[in-house]
Order: sequence, then structure tokens, then C-alpha cells
Amino acid sequence: MTLSDYGVLDRYQTRTSTPRAQFERVDPVVWGRVESPELATFDRYGYSVIDALLSPDKVAEFSTETRRLAEDPDLWLDERLIIEKKARRVRSIFEVHKLSAAVGDLVRQTRIAGLAEQILGSEVYLHQSRVNYMPGFTGAGFYWHSDFETWHAEDGMPAPRAVSLSIALTDNHPYNGSLMVMPGSHRVFVPCHGETPPDHYRDSLREQEVGVPGQDDIEKLGQAHGISQFTGAAGSALLFDSNLMHGSSNNITPFPRSNIFLVFNSVENTLGAPYAADEPRPTYIANRDFTPVR
Amino acid sequence: MTLSDYGVLDRYQTRTSTPRAQFERVDPVVWGRVESPELATFDRYGYSVIDALLSPDKVAEFSTETRRLAEDPDLWLDERLIIEKKARRVRSIFEVHKLSAAVGDLVRQTRIAGLAEQILGSEVYLHQSRVNYMPGFTGAGFYWHSDFETWHAEDGMPAPRAVSLSIALTDNHPYNGSLMVMPGSHRVFVPCHGETPPDHYRDSLREQEVGVPGQDDIEKLGQAHGISQFTGAAGSALLFDSNLMHGSSNNITPFPRSNIFLVFNSVENTLGAPYAADEPRPTYIANRDFTPVR
Repeated sequence: MTLSDYGVLDRYQTRTSTPRAQFERVDPVVWGRVESPELATFDRYGYSVIDALLSPDKVAEFSTETRRLAEDPDLWLDERLIIEKKARRVRSIFEVHKLSAAVGDLVRQTRIAGLAEQILGSEVYLHQSRVNYMPGFTGAGFYWHSDFETWHAEDGMPAPRAVSLSIALTDNHPYNGSLMVMPGSHRVFVPCHGETPPDHYRDSLREQEVGVPGQDDIEKLGQAHGISQFTGAAGSALLFDSNLMHGSSNNITPFPRSNIFLVFNSVENTLGAPYAADEPRPTYIANRDFTPVR
Repeated sequence: MTLSDYGVLDRYQTRTSTPRAQFERVDPVVWGRVESPELATFDRYGYSVIDALLSPDKVAEFSTETRRLAEDPDLWLDERLIIEKKARRVRSIFEVHKLSAAVGDLVRQTRIAGLAEQILGSEVYLHQSRVNYMPGFTGAGFYWHSDFETWHAEDGMPAPRAVSLSIALTDNHPYNGSLMVMPGSHRVFVPCHGETPPDHYRDSLREQEVGVPGQDDIEKLGQAHGISQFTGAAGSALLFDSNLMHGSSNNITPFPRSNIFLVFNSVENTLGAPYAADEPRPTYIANRDFTPVR
């Protein structure tokens, strides 16, 4: 049983047994007041690039810190650590703001959380934090998706009033699996076809298989919006809307990629029961402590 | 038994049971005299881009022609037609210069074969021709390799005195699986580790698995030479040395890629017995009719 089975209003129905057409989102994109010049085009494109968010010194510090975590034997059996099938290497570590004091401090900095507050127009809390490691040679990409679609279906996030900040710890080239986005696609909600299987998150964090958008939908968005890549030096960051369509190719180059990934949600948009899954996902993936940052 | 088992001199030993280190190639890159300005940097980088080799009209003509071939039921059981595992679609059609009169005419044009002659310093013949189709959404990439390594090991090509011309029939973006090359890597031969299994070509045309360079070698080349991508509008072409290290990522975008791929070999570099395989590959993959083009 899901919320919609009980007749609860669901403006973003997804994971339905019959396919549904994509539609214009009703919620705003910018809920607050944009003051940082870097965020000027956020409303239009659904993302903004912030160059040199971290200095080279800080990049080095965080790289050491996140490498330390990936190599910490105490975490090997921790479920917050996700292993990549093909490469047999660490792909992600969740709740990194709790595992690393340095990342925890970073989250609380005004210039970080403040970016999210400008867009979301309220206090914000951390919905998810992780560090991602995409190895060279065998780095698996991930297929097109909207994060909000998953957070709504599986975590019970009511509206697309959340933003993600991806901070590059390595240089992003066009050819090493850097993030591809469809600028403007954040205004279109693409319902996914098919019901969520139990414990879906265990597989979906490794490889997206269920709950992915249809090719017709991606084709339509691709024709309408085109594709941009988030490239740039280590230390640069991408802030993007929770409903932006994005994905990445695999990485066969010798140049690995890693980043810190922070998701801020509005305190006025806290999680309820999942809209299209039997059980909510674990709190290390979808935090249910809604205490505002700071 | 292979040629080297008989004590035949092999300056490019590969597919050996013990790993061998990469080494500087002894043969020249440019054997003739470069006259076309587009080829000015061929010697240095191992490739040249020729913008607008085909006009938009010709691109449209060849696209129709190659689509016709991919859909021709008479070819479905033809072994020259290669099917991609994952997408269950046509990946390549070999000997396309015989299957299509238009492609046959193209090969014989002075401005096409002439490019190869300038580099190779002799008359040239067609070692291989094919059309490649990389679908959107599920297009598989291919791992790093030198074509010459395969042509030497499996086809008995003595020296890297051959060039490939890849003519784009669709736009090449940085994100839809376009060719990645390591500029300057053509001067380094990377022996591959492991003996060639029988009928290796049947699998290797779909997915490279055996006879691929080691990660240490790719790492070293990547650090020394970096990576460039062949991007540009449909109709542009890349002429590249047979020993240039190249590969491509997968293509999850809605934008498919297709190209005509022509390999010219010097008539002074014709094939003998394979250097590291029991049997030569079929002639639709490695032509043994050495009649010069024109």
C-alpha cells in the first residue's frame, strides 16, 4: 500500500503500473531571493556552477580525508559504504558529514548552506550527504534520472524544494564521466513506469534499473533542452535543482573522479511516508532528523 | 604456432604470455610528403581533423545509404554485419565499400585516398571499410587500444604504415561516445599481454576483452599525453595513425552516432601471416586484395 492507495493527494505520481506522460511542474524553482551572482541563472537552467568553491589547499585536505574514509577498515562492513560491482571498489560513502568532522564543518558554513537557503527560501536541513568515488578505467556511469523522483517515491519528499551541491575533488573533464545535465529539464516532471520493488535502494545505489525514465521521455527532453556537462577544476561545485534530469557516462580514462555530494532540503518540505514504496529508505540515505543546519 | 615461434623477426611483439614494457616505435609516422595544410600536425599528434570533408548534402546522402544497409533484410544473416549485444542493434557493417557503390566511389576520390598517400608515401589499398552505428541510450563504448596492435597480431600487418579515416555522419559531441585519442601516443607501442584465442575476432568486434593494454600502460600514456576528443559537426573527419591509442565511453544520450570508417594501408606494407594468432581473420575484416585504390 502506498499513500496514493489511501487517496492522499499526490501531485507527482510516479512508479505507476501504467505509463504516465511527463508534465510541467507546478512548484516554483526559486522559493527565496537570489543574492549570489553565481545563482543568477539557477531559475532558468536548474543549476549553477560555482567556480573555486574550495581552494586548492582545501581540495587537498578533503581529498586526504575522503581517501582515509574509503580505506578505513572499520567501515568495510558498514552499510553506509557502497561497493561498485564491476570495479570491486568503494563507490560511495553515505552520511559523510557524520563520519568526517571536516565535512560536518563544511556543511555548516554560511557560504555553503546559504546558497541552498537563497534558492529554497527557508531554513534548510541535510537530506543526504555522501562522497562519491568514480575510479578510472572501469568507472560505471549512471543513467538519466531526476533525484526528486526517487526522493518523492521512496523517501516521501512532498515537493521539489531541495537542492544538491556537488563539490569536485578532482578535475572534471568532458571525458571522465562528468555529470551531464539537461538545462531547463527541472521544470518537467517525468513519472517513471513500474512499481518499486522491496529494498530497491540496495540495488539502485549501485546501478539504476527500476524507476528510470522512458527513452521517449529522455528523447523529448534531450531535443528540447540539449545537454551540458559540468566540467572544471577540482574545487568547483555544481548546485542543482532536485528535479533536474541528469546522468553520466562511464569512465574508461586513467583519470578518476571524486566529489562530495550534499543535499539540502527545505524545513518546510520534510519527509512523510513514501509516495510509491512500502517502506522508507534508511536514514543514512534519507535523513529524518530535520534539525536546521547551523 | 606463430611467426615468432619460427624465429621470424618481429619488431612489434605482442600477445605474449609474459608482460612486456611499452617502447618507442622505430618506424616513421609520415612516410611521404604532407601537402594538405590540415595534415600539418599529423606527425606530431598522430591525427588530423578535416572539417567539412563531406558537405551537408553528402552527409544526408550517405546517412540514407547506410541506414538502408542496416535495414536490409538480405544482410541480417551476413557475417559482415555485427550486432551489438546489449542493444540488439546493428553495430557495424564491414566491407561497406563493396556493399555500397556510393561508398566505393567515395574511397576512390583523390581528396580521400590522397590524404592517406601523403602520409604513407606510396600507393595505398583499402585494408578495411565499415560503417559504425552507435545507438543512443545504450551505445557501448570500446576500451583503449591501438588498431595496429590488432592488425599486426591478428592480420599480419608488418609495420604501422596505415591510416584510418573516420567520417562522421552525425554530430560528435563530447558526451555521446565520441572518439577519445591520446595525442602523441602513436609513437609508443604497447604490447598486450595474453595469447590470442582462436576465432578471437568474433567476440572482439563486439567487445574488446583479450589483447587489451594494461592499466599501467594506459596510465603512463594518459599522464604523458592527455586526452583529446574528436568532436564536430557531421561531415567532419578524423585521419589517424594506425598506432594511436584511442577508445570511447558509452553513449547514454538520446543522440546516436554513426560514421564511415576507412583504413588505408601502404602497398609496401601488405599482410603476411598473423604475428600472434593461429589463423588470419576473414578478408572482410582484413582485406588481402592489395590492388591500389584507383
